[in-house]
Amino acid sequence: FFALGRQVTIEYYECGATAFLDAVRVEDALLKAAKDSNATIISSSFHQFEPQGVSGVVVIAESHFTIHAWPEHDYAAVDIFTCGDNINLEAAITSMKESFESKNVLISSDQNRGIISKPFAKQHIGQTLK
Amino acid sequence: FFALGRQVTIEYYECGATAFLDAVRVEDALLKAAKDSNATIISSSFHQFEPQGVSGVVVIAESHFTIHAWPEHDYAAVDIFTCGDNINLEAAITSMKESFESKNVLISSDQNRGIISKPFAKQHIGQTLK
Repeated sequence: FFALGRQVTIEYYECGATAFLDAVRVEDALLKAAKDSNATIISSSFHQFEPQGVSGVVVIAESHFTIHAWPEHDYAAVDIFTCGDNINLEAAITSMKESFESKNVLISSDQNRGIISKPFAKQHIGQTLK
Repeated sequence: FFALGRQVTIEYYECGATAFLDAVRVEDALLKAAKDSNATIISSSFHQFEPQGVSGVVVIAESHFTIHAWPEHDYAAVDIFTCGDNINLEAAITSMKESFESKNVLISSDQNRGIISKPFAKQHIGQTLK
């Protein structure tokens, strides 16, 4: 059996005081992280909430990046969903750590999604469960 | 302490043969699920892949719905990220089960996101960790 996708959740705590005040800045950070990870960007959509807060998603050919940021807690919840082996997750996570000036980054889950049985004859190398 | 958000992942296996062939149909299903859960829809973005596959996100005021669907496996990976107590997750999950004609639905994780310490004086009832 193998997994079609992989979903990683990352907690960015103790971020810079201005990291999440502006949706454009947050969008730039996620687009940069997606590029740094070798993802192919398809679209992005970001929203500023009143009095504060930013939500956003970047759809990539390999699945997605999402973020929900609480400036009042210097915190953002990120998740990265990928398929295939071309995405450098470490690069994406480090890129956002720098953009958000986070002093406390926690990879809080790393989950296989879509665990599929497959006849042996159809298996390809590298499709085993990671 | 309490959690700012909650992220639930759902696996829809054994879906209908035509459930994921058309991105518009998948988008309609997610928008319906978001409405059925009492979410406030902000934006949605869906993409059809060649030769097959659909990815999409619905940004809601309370955070997001995402989906990645593999028609060749009759499978879709969904996640729902919420803040606050106004979203009826059960209604959303059941709505998509019906839309996708899934015979095998698995809630594969239910994760608290952004666990924050808060001075006792500032706590409100209902903000304890669930």
